[in-house]
Amino acid sequence: MTPHEHATRFGTIDGELRLGGQPLSRVAARVGQTPFFAYDRSLLDARVDELRGLLPARVELSYAMKANPMPALVQHLARRVDRIDVASAGEMQHALDTGIRADRVSFAGPGKTPAEIRQAVATGIIVEVESATELARVTAAAGQLGVRALAAVRVNPDFAVKGSGMRMGGGPQQFGIDAEQVPDVLARAGDAVDILGFHVFAGSQNLQADIIAEAQRRTVDLVTDLAEHLPGPLRYLNLGGGFGIPYTARDQPLDLRAVAEGLAELVDGPIAARFPEASPVIELGRFLVGECGVYVTRVVDRKVSRGKTFVVVDGGMHHQLAASGNFGQAIRRNYPVVVGNRATDAKDDDVVTVVGCLCTPLDLLADGPAAGRRHR
Amino acid sequence: MTPHEHATRFGTIDGELRLGGQPLSRVAARVGQTPFFAYDRSLLDARVDELRGLLPARVELSYAMKANPMPALVQHLARRVDRIDVASAGEMQHALDTGIRADRVSFAGPGKTPAEIRQAVATGIIVEVESATELARVTAAAGQLGVRALAAVRVNPDFAVKGSGMRMGGGPQQFGIDAEQVPDVLARAGDAVDILGFHVFAGSQNLQADIIAEAQRRTVDLVTDLAEHLPGPLRYLNLGGGFGIPYTARDQPLDLRAVAEGLAELVDGPIAARFPEASPVIELGRFLVGECGVYVTRVVDRKVSRGKTFVVVDGGMHHQLAASGNFGQAIRRNYPVVVGNRATDAKDDDVVTVVGCLCTPLDLLADGPAAGRRHR
Repeated sequence: MTPHEHATRFGTIDGELRLGGQPLSRVAARVGQTPFFAYDRSLLDARVDELRGLLPARVELSYAMKANPMPALVQHLARRVDRIDVASAGEMQHALDTGIRADRVSFAGPGKTPAEIRQAVATGIIVEVESATELARVTAAAGQLGVRALAAVRVNPDFAVKGSGMRMGGGPQQFGIDAEQVPDVLARAGDAVDILGFHVFAGSQNLQADIIAEAQRRTVDLVTDLAEHLPGPLRYLNLGGGFGIPYTARDQPLDLRAVAEGLAELVDGPIAARFPEASPVIELGRFLVGECGVYVTRVVDRKVSRGKTFVVVDGGMHHQLAASGNFGQAIRRNYPVVVGNRATDAKDDDVVTVVGCLCTPLDLLADGPAAGRRHR
Repeated sequence: MTPHEHATRFGTIDGELRLGGQPLSRVAARVGQTPFFAYDRSLLDARVDELRGLLPARVELSYAMKANPMPALVQHLARRVDRIDVASAGEMQHALDTGIRADRVSFAGPGKTPAEIRQAVATGIIVEVESATELARVTAAAGQLGVRALAAVRVNPDFAVKGSGMRMGGGPQQFGIDAEQVPDVLARAGDAVDILGFHVFAGSQNLQADIIAEAQRRTVDLVTDLAEHLPGPLRYLNLGGGFGIPYTARDQPLDLRAVAEGLAELVDGPIAARFPEASPVIELGRFLVGECGVYVTRVVDRKVSRGKTFVVVDGGMHHQLAASGNFGQAIRRNYPVVVGNRATDAKDDDVVTVVGCLCTPLDLLADGPAAGRRHR
């Protein structure tokens, strides 16, 4: 997708990028400063509607708020999704501040502290245990607090998903309990913990529908085996997400319709047959929010140095690390960049290098021919 | 340098790493939580003493506080160095809070905002102008405020330094004004700005003394040419720094004595002869502070997944990005890691992978055979 295609999603007013129904320069005046991030609620709604329209009705949506924990955004999404996934006690507090029911909040993450686990048990959220040690801590907290804890087992699957931006399942992982260890762990669980089901997450930022569908099929197979070791019926079936979004001009958007079709077969087939008490959960972070916002910076200088034109902005990699290529990328590629207050201006054949304000050559936001609006 | 050699700098008490004269577990109890960064004032003093002992007496030390802006640390160093370099109005405020004289503070950075420039001029610090636009803004602010501004010209040299971790001079750069443009820029400067001299910075994180010495020689040559275009005598001669520190087991410490010898020849020779009114400034950030502190995390879980042992800590890449390999590195290499509360324990042949608490495979702090105390 080109920057122009990205910008089209937002639309324009008076030649400026439109955000929340106002032109960008007015939004900047509202914020009172640059740089800032801004998210458009109507785009969040459209994305949720798109998912609801395509995915089977029985599928629940969970927002993995690590993707963007801004309270106003979480507040908005909390009324539109079914669940929120948190990755820390701080996120848990923000999630609960939206008024969502505690048992609709899940807590995943390989490094929960004992104090966080105790907070989660006291609150009554679903702790996704990622090791035998975590399950023991949940059990201990339940005993101390005199409550029955809600938990699920996060499973490191025995298969790997290819084509993900980040593989997080299969092989040795810090995430989840190896599938082959799960029966033993469940056998040792006591009555103090109500183990509702499983979360299997194979990888994130995947743009290939067939791979996501295959991972979901294998997840249902795996959970079918594991569910036999649960003392009661399966009531929580988190299939993960991994739906990717296009970051650079090379990326093609995910074919959501194809994902939805594969999922419908599972929901109507084995899930309905084997797990009548479980609503399958699709947990999404960046796919819900990543394309609904912009990072806005102001140009503070423009200089020509030995034939190369630098545009210096007042933001940089301290806010937008991934665009600088310093967040897991082997090769930095330009994120979509538009001149937001001249979004419809045709005259921009200028080739520039956009750099942030930090005193380091790493602070590079867009470079070369791909930095303008005309893209390769 | 191995982790053990790094730890030797801190010493041990009762088998634990020593920080500020106390064992690590006591420091953690003082802080009241993990993770945290802790810096040892005695090591900061020792580093300043080492520099003062080796560098020519006439050389002034400037602390580039972008390396670590923690107020207590800046306060400590402010009484031991001659100058502080800031990179934002926020840093400027922290620097001034130490009681340092305004004209001992310099402000560098390619993306200073007009508001920051106005604040700097009102305060009377030295604005290192990095473009003709910035000089015009300094001039305008001086006029509006009715003061004479202090400035220096940051020069993008016409030579490049090889062997730096980051090249920041030579070729097209967002940093500084190209050397060949400087005479023109100076010719257009008015009386409202007192241009004290120059700052030439060729690169950072350099571990090769001969290259640093060569850059300093060429810098003095360059400034000798440029100084002819100043209306008055040169009073500010910032030679940059670029002194590197060893990060990984492959890195050898910089030969500071060799750097000092080269610098002494320049100070006693051309600098004394040509610039009697200027004290040369060496500006250092990481070299002053980087080896004087530790990042302390607590192990929250240890799990074996398909033959690989993961140690999960309560910190991670959100605090220690560089150790995860996501800060300019093409290849991630282990930073020195020690088990701080068992620093003298001989029994640690264990091979583990140390991961942070974030739900991403990027959050990797140390891996494989090099994660223990025994290093390649």
